[in-house]
Amino acid sequence: MSNASDGMNFAPKGKPAPVVTAGEFRFAAMHLDHGHISGQCNGLIEAGGTLTKVYDPDPAKVAGFVKSYPQVQAVADPREILEDPTIRLVAAAAVPCDRGPLGCRVMRHGKDYFTDKTPFTSLVQLAEAKRVVAETGRKYMVYYSERLHVECAIAAGDLVEQGRIGRVVQVIGTGPHRHGPAGCRPAWFYEKAKYGGILCDIGSHQLEQFLFYTGNTEATIQASKVANYRFPQHPELEDFGDVTVIGGNGASGYHRVDWLNPNGLRSWGDGRLILLGTEGYIELRKYIDVTTDNGGEQLILVDQQGEHRMNCAGKTGYPYFGRLIRDCLDRSETAMTQAHAFKAAELCLQAQAVAVRLA
Amino acid sequence: MSNASDGMNFAPKGKPAPVVTAGEFRFAAMHLDHGHISGQCNGLIEAGGTLTKVYDPDPAKVAGFVKSYPQVQAVADPREILEDPTIRLVAAAAVPCDRGPLGCRVMRHGKDYFTDKTPFTSLVQLAEAKRVVAETGRKYMVYYSERLHVECAIAAGDLVEQGRIGRVVQVIGTGPHRHGPAGCRPAWFYEKAKYGGILCDIGSHQLEQFLFYTGNTEATIQASKVANYRFPQHPELEDFGDVTVIGGNGASGYHRVDWLNPNGLRSWGDGRLILLGTEGYIELRKYIDVTTDNGGEQLILVDQQGEHRMNCAGKTGYPYFGRLIRDCLDRSETAMTQAHAFKAAELCLQAQAVAVRLA
Repeated sequence: MSNASDGMNFAPKGKPAPVVTAGEFRFAAMHLDHGHISGQCNGLIEAGGTLTKVYDPDPAKVAGFVKSYPQVQAVADPREILEDPTIRLVAAAAVPCDRGPLGCRVMRHGKDYFTDKTPFTSLVQLAEAKRVVAETGRKYMVYYSERLHVECAIAAGDLVEQGRIGRVVQVIGTGPHRHGPAGCRPAWFYEKAKYGGILCDIGSHQLEQFLFYTGNTEATIQASKVANYRFPQHPELEDFGDVTVIGGNGASGYHRVDWLNPNGLRSWGDGRLILLGTEGYIELRKYIDVTTDNGGEQLILVDQQGEHRMNCAGKTGYPYFGRLIRDCLDRSETAMTQAHAFKAAELCLQAQAVAVRLA
Repeated sequence: MSNASDGMNFAPKGKPAPVVTAGEFRFAAMHLDHGHISGQCNGLIEAGGTLTKVYDPDPAKVAGFVKSYPQVQAVADPREILEDPTIRLVAAAAVPCDRGPLGCRVMRHGKDYFTDKTPFTSLVQLAEAKRVVAETGRKYMVYYSERLHVECAIAAGDLVEQGRIGRVVQVIGTGPHRHGPAGCRPAWFYEKAKYGGILCDIGSHQLEQFLFYTGNTEATIQASKVANYRFPQHPELEDFGDVTVIGGNGASGYHRVDWLNPNGLRSWGDGRLILLGTEGYIELRKYIDVTTDNGGEQLILVDQQGEHRMNCAGKTGYPYFGRLIRDCLDRSETAMTQAHAFKAAELCLQAQAVAVRLA
C-alpha cells in the first residue's frame, strides 16, 4: 500500500509481471479526479503497459501526475489521446457521473476503457454503455480495486476455486472508509448527483465481490438502506449504506459500507470479507489486522481440518492487470467478463435506487 | 466456558456475586431438553439463588442433572414444584414449542418463569404469554445467553453506555453454531414445528442484542432469509438464516446465524458482534479469537484515539442473574424489562415468518 491511512489514494504496488514487451500495449490516462487513477496506472505498468499520454482540464492535477510518471506526455486537448491510433486503452477516474459518458466517447474512438469504480451513476448510463459496447466491440472495464488490488482477496478466490470451503453460500463484506479531515475532499464528493450515493459508489466494490465469490451471473437486491448519521453539514453525503442480495444460484450476500472510520485506526478502513462455505469459512482482514502488528493482507481460513492463517502480502501479485492487457490485445475475457462488470454496476445502482433512508 | 467446542452445553461459570442469603430465593428446574438449563441454574446459584427441586419426564435427564447439582430434590410430579409456595421462580429449557405454554402454567401458579431462548415458536404463544403476564403480574424472563452470559458482551454494553463509540448506528451479529456429529441432537432439533426455524431459535439471541445495543424499544424487520444448504437428510432443518432490522431510532442491524461451523474450529462457533458507532466501533470475538491463543471474550475497541484490546475473561461476571433475583423479589425491572424480552421474541418470530427460502 502506498499510504495505509488514506483510502482515497490507495494504490498498491504489485509484483511486476509483464505480459507484453515495452511499447506493445500503449495506454493513456484521462481525468484524474479520483486518486485511484494511480492504482489503475501502476497495475497496467507493472503488467508491461506503456503509459504514454495524460489529459486533465486541471493543470495542477496533470503536474502532480507527471511528477509520479515522468515518462508521460501531458496533452492539452483530449483529442490528442482519443485520436492517437497507437493508444489501445484509456484509463480514467473522472467524477463518477462523468464516467459513463466518457467511456462511450472513448469506445467510439475505437479504444478500450478502464474506469475507476463506480462505473456509472444511473441505469440510463449503463444502458448506453451496453449499447456502445455492442456497437463498437470495445471493452468497458472497471477498477473494482477492493478485490482486484488486494492480495488476500486474490488468494481467497484461488481457495474458493480449489473448493477449500465447499460451496460458498454467503458473503459478508464490510467496507468502512475514512472521510479524512474537513476540506480534504473535492466538492463532487458531497453532491449526490455527481457521486451517485454511497451504495452506487463504494458499494460497487461489494456487489462485484458478491458476484465473484459466489459465482453468480444473476442476482436480485432483497433490501438496502442508506443514512447520513454524522455529516449534517453535508446533507447529500450518505455516510452509511447496506444491502442484502440474493444470487441466482441460491447464495446470498450482505454488504455494509460507511464513511465513519474512526481516526484512531491506523488504516483508512478495516475492510473485511467473510466467505461462508458449506465446508469452512474464510475471513479477510484486508488493510489492517486491528490491534495486531501483522499488517493487512491477512487471510484466515477455517475448514474441517483446522484454523489457518496466511499473510498474503507479496504472495499473489495482482493478476488482473496482465490479463486485462492480454484481453485487450487478444479480444478475450480472462480478466473479467463484460457481463460481470456490468452486472455489478447494475446491482449497485439498483441497491441505491431501492434504499430505505434511515437518517 | 464449560466446554468450548460444544455450544449445546455452553454454560459459563461466572464470578459468584450473591444478592441474597442462602434460602432467601428458592427456585426449581423443569424440563431439561436443552443443555442451557445448566447455564441458567449456574447463573442463579452464583447470584445466591437456592436450587431446590427438579422435574423432567425423562429419568435419565433428571439423573444427569442431580449429578451436577447434588443439592437438588428430584420430584416425580411437576405439581410438586408448581404448588410449592416456597419456590419463587421456575427455570426451564423445554422443547421450544413447549416453552410458551409451560411459562403460562408456571405464571398461573404465581411463580416467575425463566426460560431458555427462544421463548416462543409462534406469535399466538407470545400473545398468550403477554395476557398471562398482565393477569398474574408474574415475569416471563428469557435466557438470551449470547449476551447475558458473555463477559465481553457485558463490557461492550458498559462502553456503549459510557458513550465511548458515540451513537451506535448499526450492529452486525454473526452466530455460527456447530451441529456436531450425526446423532448428537434430539429429534425435535430437526422438526420445524418444534424448534421454530433458525431465525426463531438461535436468531432470537441476535435480535435481543440488536435492541439492547442500539437502545431500541421498537423495530421492524426489513428482510430475512433461510436455507438448508448442507443437511438434505433433515429437510426441516434450516442451517442458514439472516435478517436485517430497522430500529425506531434510525439505527439498524444485520444478523446471520448458521449450523455450518467447521470441525476445524476449536470452538463451537466463531460468534462475533460488531457495533458501529459515530465515534468508533467495537468488535467482540466471543468464544474464540480465531488463529490466536488469546481465548474468547476478546473486545476490540477502535475510537478516535486509537485501537484497544480488552481480554474480558473474568472481568465483569454476569450481572444479569443477581439483578433477575432482585427483580423477582423487589418486583423491579433492572435485569431486563418484560417489554424488551417480548420485543426480541416478536422480532425473531416476524423475521422467521417473512423469510425468503433460498435452498
